Amino acid sequence: MSRIALGIRYRGTAYQGWQSQPGGRTVQDHLEDALSRFAAQPIRTVCAGRTDTGVHAINQVVHLDAPVDREPASWVRGTNRYLPQDIAVQWCTPVPDGFHARNCATGRRYRYRLLESPVRPSLEAGLCGWVFVRLQGQAMREAASCLVGEHDFSAFRAAECQAVSPVKNLRELAITRHETMLGTLWHFDFEASAFLHHMVRNIMGCLVFVGQGRRPVSWMQEVLDSRSRQLAAPTFSPEGLFFIGPSYEPKWGIPAAVLSSGET
Amino acid sequence: MSRIALGIRYRGTAYQGWQSQPGGRTVQDHLEDALSRFAAQPIRTVCAGRTDTGVHAINQVVHLDAPVDREPASWVRGTNRYLPQDIAVQWCTPVPDGFHARNCATGRRYRYRLLESPVRPSLEAGLCGWVFVRLQGQAMREAASCLVGEHDFSAFRAAECQAVSPVKNLRELAITRHETMLGTLWHFDFEASAFLHHMVRNIMGCLVFVGQGRRPVSWMQEVLDSRSRQLAAPTFSPEGLFFIGPSYEPKWGIPAAVLSSGET
Repeated sequence: MSRIALGIRYRGTAYQGWQSQPGGRTVQDHLEDALSRFAAQPIRTVCAGRTDTGVHAINQVVHLDAPVDREPASWVRGTNRYLPQDIAVQWCTPVPDGFHARNCATGRRYRYRLLESPVRPSLEAGLCGWVFVRLQGQAMREAASCLVGEHDFSAFRAAECQAVSPVKNLRELAITRHETMLGTLWHFDFEASAFLHHMVRNIMGCLVFVGQGRRPVSWMQEVLDSRSRQLAAPTFSPEGLFFIGPSYEPKWGIPAAVLSSGET
Repeated sequence: MSRIALGIRYRGTAYQGWQSQPGGRTVQDHLEDALSRFAAQPIRTVCAGRTDTGVHAINQVVHLDAPVDREPASWVRGTNRYLPQDIAVQWCTPVPDGFHARNCATGRRYRYRLLESPVRPSLEAGLCGWVFVRLQGQAMREAASCLVGEHDFSAFRAAECQAVSPVKNLRELAITRHETMLGTLWHFDFEASAFLHHMVRNIMGCLVFVGQGRRPVSWMQEVLDSRSRQLAAPTFSPEGLFFIGPSYEPKWGIPAAVLSSGET
């Protein structure tokens, strides 16, 4: 058995999130089913970041111990043949046995894509969040600045969260506005050591409250300091959330997602 | 009865194109059904550009003669309530009786969005075309240059095309390459007085042949001059085609789609 890593891209709209469930309507279920059919043996995978229902991924990374010896390109092509059209393996690379998709990740990157428009999404439905009240970028950026760094993020943590510690290092939270043919799209780019369950969507809810003037900029610090979900805004919708992917030490040779500054 | 114009955006994936059909699975059928429910009277529309199965629209323009008197904002909100999630009215404006969505259009704009990747689309499935062989931009741009201007485009015309004349004025064909988080995306931006049926998709097939070196640059002129579908490449897939919208004289006051240079 030799260990391999794969990069997986998917549109989360049709799936009950990443993690395998009895019903079988998850990305992991479809991936493991396709891998097992290609290898003609049961295969289980470990991923870098579990995504919720409706959340998308650009470069989800998984590892597995391959029961058969195949070229990397064969894993990609052979597995994609059995995957639905909204899931695809992007790349495959052999890794040392010490590599672990979740435990070796030194950071994770998410983008939230938000449409600001008087009209709900249509062409872009399922692929962005939506606000119809205009957002103030400067207020959101000021509020976001108090979140950057190492903090106890309990205020933005879902009740079901299984993380050992609520202390995470949020290294970046960049907010940019883009005028596109779809109208005004905001990008919220998050980079952290790791994220608590619903952390991005809970922060998004609070940023939108501040951006629309429903709360003052200073309120974000109060929410963070409270370490309680009581104060924060409701969890924002999953449709606009993209797991860009994990990062690793270069020694593992894992391809990273290329994040351009432009709108995608 | 007073005439109004509406801007319609849709994802074409689930529909058998724009034009009404007995089966009822078209964008026009859904729109007219929603308008008729809002107005509580049967309503028929005329559009600026009929789109094929699977083709999307950013700012499709229609006009209709309103049997009831409502505020423009009410038409937008009231109609959207009855439309499926992948179709939405973007705006509504009163227009003089002389306005006609198709006959008054002085130009039409399409964008073809093409993914260049060894792996098929997944997250972006249905919203872009796909090639796995690398494209040469300079060759495609040189080939495209002979198409710009007023020509007989019979070589790129579908057999079913109902246009009176095959002579159209292609005012622009811009080809740009974008590195995005989805990988390499090409934009092909077309602007013309009007388009023949399948004209964009037939030109796309030929441009891709040239871009992949399957035909020389000079072949495009031969195809154009032949005025025969025999020579041209197969019709390219509809998934990557976006009807950006029509243009009108400013006097009509019709909102235009904003086309940014970035990738959307």
